[in-house]
Amino acid sequence: MSASHSLIAMEMGIDTHQEPVVFMRADCEVCRAEGFNANTRIQVGLENRTIIATLNVVTEKVLPPDHIGFSRIAWQRMALEGGERVQISHAPLLHSMSAVRKKIYGHTLSSREIHDIVADIAAHRYSDMQIASFITAGVDCLNTQEIIALTQAMVASGKRLTWPDTLQLVDKHCIGGVPGNRTTPIVVAIASAAGLVMPKTSSRAITSPSGTADTMEVLTTVRLSLEQIQQTVRKVNACLAWGGAVNLSPADDMLIRIEHALDIDGVGQLVASVLSKKLAAGSTHALIDIPVGPTAKVRSQHEARHLAGLFDTVGQALGLKMRCLITNGDEAIGYGIGPAQEAQDILAVLNNEPGAPADLRERALFLAANLLNLAGGASLEVAQARAQELLASGQAWEQFKRICDAQGGLKTIPQAAHQLELGARHSGTLLAMDNRRLSRLAKLAGAPISPAAGLRLHIKLGQALAQDQPLLTLYADSRGELDYAAAYYANNHDMFMVGEAS
Amino acid sequence: MSASHSLIAMEMGIDTHQEPVVFMRADCEVCRAEGFNANTRIQVGLENRTIIATLNVVTEKVLPPDHIGFSRIAWQRMALEGGERVQISHAPLLHSMSAVRKKIYGHTLSSREIHDIVADIAAHRYSDMQIASFITAGVDCLNTQEIIALTQAMVASGKRLTWPDTLQLVDKHCIGGVPGNRTTPIVVAIASAAGLVMPKTSSRAITSPSGTADTMEVLTTVRLSLEQIQQTVRKVNACLAWGGAVNLSPADDMLIRIEHALDIDGVGQLVASVLSKKLAAGSTHALIDIPVGPTAKVRSQHEARHLAGLFDTVGQALGLKMRCLITNGDEAIGYGIGPAQEAQDILAVLNNEPGAPADLRERALFLAANLLNLAGGASLEVAQARAQELLASGQAWEQFKRICDAQGGLKTIPQAAHQLELGARHSGTLLAMDNRRLSRLAKLAGAPISPAAGLRLHIKLGQALAQDQPLLTLYADSRGELDYAAAYYANNHDMFMVGEAS
Repeated sequence: MSASHSLIAMEMGIDTHQEPVVFMRADCEVCRAEGFNANTRIQVGLENRTIIATLNVVTEKVLPPDHIGFSRIAWQRMALEGGERVQISHAPLLHSMSAVRKKIYGHTLSSREIHDIVADIAAHRYSDMQIASFITAGVDCLNTQEIIALTQAMVASGKRLTWPDTLQLVDKHCIGGVPGNRTTPIVVAIASAAGLVMPKTSSRAITSPSGTADTMEVLTTVRLSLEQIQQTVRKVNACLAWGGAVNLSPADDMLIRIEHALDIDGVGQLVASVLSKKLAAGSTHALIDIPVGPTAKVRSQHEARHLAGLFDTVGQALGLKMRCLITNGDEAIGYGIGPAQEAQDILAVLNNEPGAPADLRERALFLAANLLNLAGGASLEVAQARAQELLASGQAWEQFKRICDAQGGLKTIPQAAHQLELGARHSGTLLAMDNRRLSRLAKLAGAPISPAAGLRLHIKLGQALAQDQPLLTLYADSRGELDYAAAYYANNHDMFMVGEAS
Repeated sequence: MSASHSLIAMEMGIDTHQEPVVFMRADCEVCRAEGFNANTRIQVGLENRTIIATLNVVTEKVLPPDHIGFSRIAWQRMALEGGERVQISHAPLLHSMSAVRKKIYGHTLSSREIHDIVADIAAHRYSDMQIASFITAGVDCLNTQEIIALTQAMVASGKRLTWPDTLQLVDKHCIGGVPGNRTTPIVVAIASAAGLVMPKTSSRAITSPSGTADTMEVLTTVRLSLEQIQQTVRKVNACLAWGGAVNLSPADDMLIRIEHALDIDGVGQLVASVLSKKLAAGSTHALIDIPVGPTAKVRSQHEARHLAGLFDTVGQALGLKMRCLITNGDEAIGYGIGPAQEAQDILAVLNNEPGAPADLRERALFLAANLLNLAGGASLEVAQARAQELLASGQAWEQFKRICDAQGGLKTIPQAAHQLELGARHSGTLLAMDNRRLSRLAKLAGAPISPAAGLRLHIKLGQALAQDQPLLTLYADSRGELDYAAAYYANNHDMFMVGEAS
C-alpha cells in the first residue's frame, strides 16, 4: 500500500504500559478509511524508525488538526522530540499470526514458525491482545521440541553475553511464588567466594512485593550496562545486576508481562523463559529451585517433578548442565518481605548474626553446596562443608562487599516513615500461612515501589503464640498506604491459620 | 477490601473503543498501591453504578490533582456528567477466569461455568485481553454440550423478544465472507408477502464494507426500539431492523469484536453467536446460508458440511427447526459493494429491472423458497413457484415498501461525490476474484462509514473483457479516500485473475 499520510507528532503524557498507542482525531482521513475496531493497528514511521501502534480516536479538544498523539512507550520507541512530521500507513500483515492460529487449532509448530512469532513479538509488532492469544494457545500445548525452539528463538531475539576466557559460568534460578525467598545474593556470595564465576542477572518484581533486583537495589547499584557487568565479573568473579537493563531475551519480557496480567502460568513458557535468560547470559551450568506448597506457584510433588524433568530435558538439549531441586514452599522464607526488609535478612545471614533467619541461611547453604557440587566437581558432602565454612568464616560476607563495591558501593538500607504492629486474633500454634495474600499485603503497603515498605514476620510455622502477640509489623512510606494495607489485613486475617497443633 | 478513595470525574475525549479505560496520575495513592501492570484493573463506583476499567497512568500536565479521567465508553457506562466524586477500589477477583484457565488446560466446562464466564463478559468485567484469552482457549475445543451451554448463556445475557400471538417466526442468516451478498431484504420481502412472520434484526459491518443493517439504513430507518420492532411486525409481518439497538445477546457482541480483531473464527462460537441471536429474537425456524469458496469464510465442502451439522444439532437441541444451505461463494454477489451500491441492486431485483443482477435474484429466490418450504409446509417445487410469482408480480416490492413505510418511509439512496473507473490491465476471461481484497477496496473508499462509498463491478466470473475495459467503478465521498483506495488497487490489481478460459 503506497498511500501514506503525514501528521505532526505530539507527546500525550499518557502511559499505556508496554503497548504503544497513538491518538488520532476522528475526522482524519486515515481514521475514516481504516474504520476503528478493537485492535486497529497503524504503522508510524520517521526516517528509518517504524513502530506498529494501537489506534485510539480522540475529539478535536484533545489534539489540534493535523497532529498525532503518542503514548509514553510509543514516544520512546520512536525516539521523538515533538513537532516531527511522521508518516502514517497501514500496519503490514502479521504473517506469524497464521502460526498462532495453527496452534489454536492444535497443530504442532515448526522451529521456523516459532522463531517468526518470537521475532515479531520482540520487535513489538504484536498487540497485547495478540500476545494474550499466543500465550493462551500455547500454554499447555507445546511439546518438548517446540519448547526447545521457543527457548532458542527467545535467545535469538536479544543480546547475548560472551565470556571469551571463561570455561564455565554458573547460574541459579528460583521459579518463585514464596515471599522472602531471597537466597540469590547469599548463594552468589558463597559460590563466587569458592571460585565459581557467577554473572547473575535478576528481574524486578512483576506481581510480587520484591524481585531480587529490587532487593539488591537497596544494597548497591544494579542498573549495569553489558560492559559494566563484564567488568564487574572480571574483577570479582560475580555480579548481582538487574537483567532488564541489558535486554537479554526481550521477547520473554513481553510474554511474562501478559502471562501475569492473565494470571496464566504455562509450563513450556516458564521453562523457555528461564533457560533463555541463562543461555543469553552465557551460562554453562544452571541450578533450578522449585518450591512446592499449597499456596506456592507449584502445588504438588507430581507437578514439581514434571517441571523438573522438562527443565532437565530442554536445558541439556541446549547444552546446559542442569540440576533441579524441589524445596519446601509452605511458608515465607526469612522474616522480611519487601526490598529493605529482605535486604536486612540477607545481611543478618551473611554476618552470622544470632537473630538471622535460620531457614534462609539453611536454604542458601543447600543451594550453594549443590552449585559447588554441580560445577566445582566436589562431592556433595565436601561442597556442603565448604559452603558452611565460607559463610561462617565471613569470607562470603567479604566477597559480597567486594561485589557491591565493584557495582558502586554498599548502600545504607532505607527506613520506612510509618510502621504498625499487627497482633494475633487468638492464641494457638501457627499452622499455615497464605503466601499469596501475604505478598499482596506487602505490596499494598507500597513494596516494591517504596523500597522501605513491606512487612516483617515475628513468627514461623509451628511456633506458639498468645492472643495479641505481634504476628508482623507493616512498614510504609505514607500513612495512606499503611491504612490501605491494614484495612486489607482486617478483612484477611485468616491468611494466618492459628489453631491446635495435632 | 474496604479501603477506597474518591476522585473527581473528568471526560478525556479519548475513544478506547469498547474497553473502558480510566486515567490516573502516577502520584496518586491508588496507583502506588496497585502498581501498574499490563492489565491493572480498577473498580470505579458512583451510587449504585460500578464499572471495571483498565488503568492508564498520566502525567500531571494531563490531569489536575485529585481527578480521574474516563475514556468515552467508561464515561457512557458510568453515565457521568463531570465533576462527580467517584469511589475507586480494587477490582474484585474475577472468579470465572478460573474456568477460562481450566479450558486452557483442556478440560470440559460445565454449563454453570460457561454461564458465569458469559455473564461476566456481558457485564463488561473482562478486559479485551481476557476475552482474547477465552476466545483462544475455546476456539476449537468446545464440544456440542458446551456449545449448547454457550448459546443458552448468550441468550440469558441479554433481552429477549416475545411474540404472544405468533406460533412460528422465521429467520435467515448468512455466515458471511462474500461481498455484495445482500439477499436478506429480498428474502424478507418475499417470505413475509407469502404470509410468514419474519422479525429480522441484522448487524452492521464489523470488518466488511457493509452489513445488512448498513445497507438497509440507506433505504429506511433501522434503529428501532424493541417496541417499534414489535409494532412494525404486528403491522406488516416483518421488519428489517438493526439488532445492535435492542441488546439481544450482548455478550456475543463482545466476543465477535475480539474475534475479528484477532482474525480468529471459532466454529463453536460462530454457531452459538448466530443461534443465540435467533433464539433471543424469538425465532422458531432458522435457515442458514453457508457460502463456500476459495476466498470466502468457509473454504471447503467438507468444512461447510461440518458446520452445517453443528448448526443443526445445536439448533434442534434448543428447539429450533433448522435448515442449512451450502451455496457458491466463489465471487461477489450482484454488482454493488457498499451500502448504497448494494441497495441499488436490491431495488433493481425487487423492481424486476432488466439490468438487475441475476445471481442476487436467483439466490434470494432459492433462500425464500426454502423458507416457505421449511416453515410454510409447501413442497419445495410449490414454494419455488410461489416465491418466483411473488417477486415477478411486484407483490414482494409492495411488501418491501410496506415494511419501509412502517419503519419510517423509503429514503432516497445517497450519491457519492467522487467516482473513478478502473480498467482491466489486459484482455481475457475473468477467472477468479479475491473476495477479501475486493471488500478491503470498498472499505478504503469509505464504506460503510460513508454510505454512498464503495464500488460497482462491471463484470462477473466467466465473462470476457478487452484491455482497458472497465472492471469496476470506485465511489467515495472525498478525493482523499478515492486516492487511498485507487492506490491500494494499483498494488493489488491481481485481486482479479484474468486469463484464458480452459
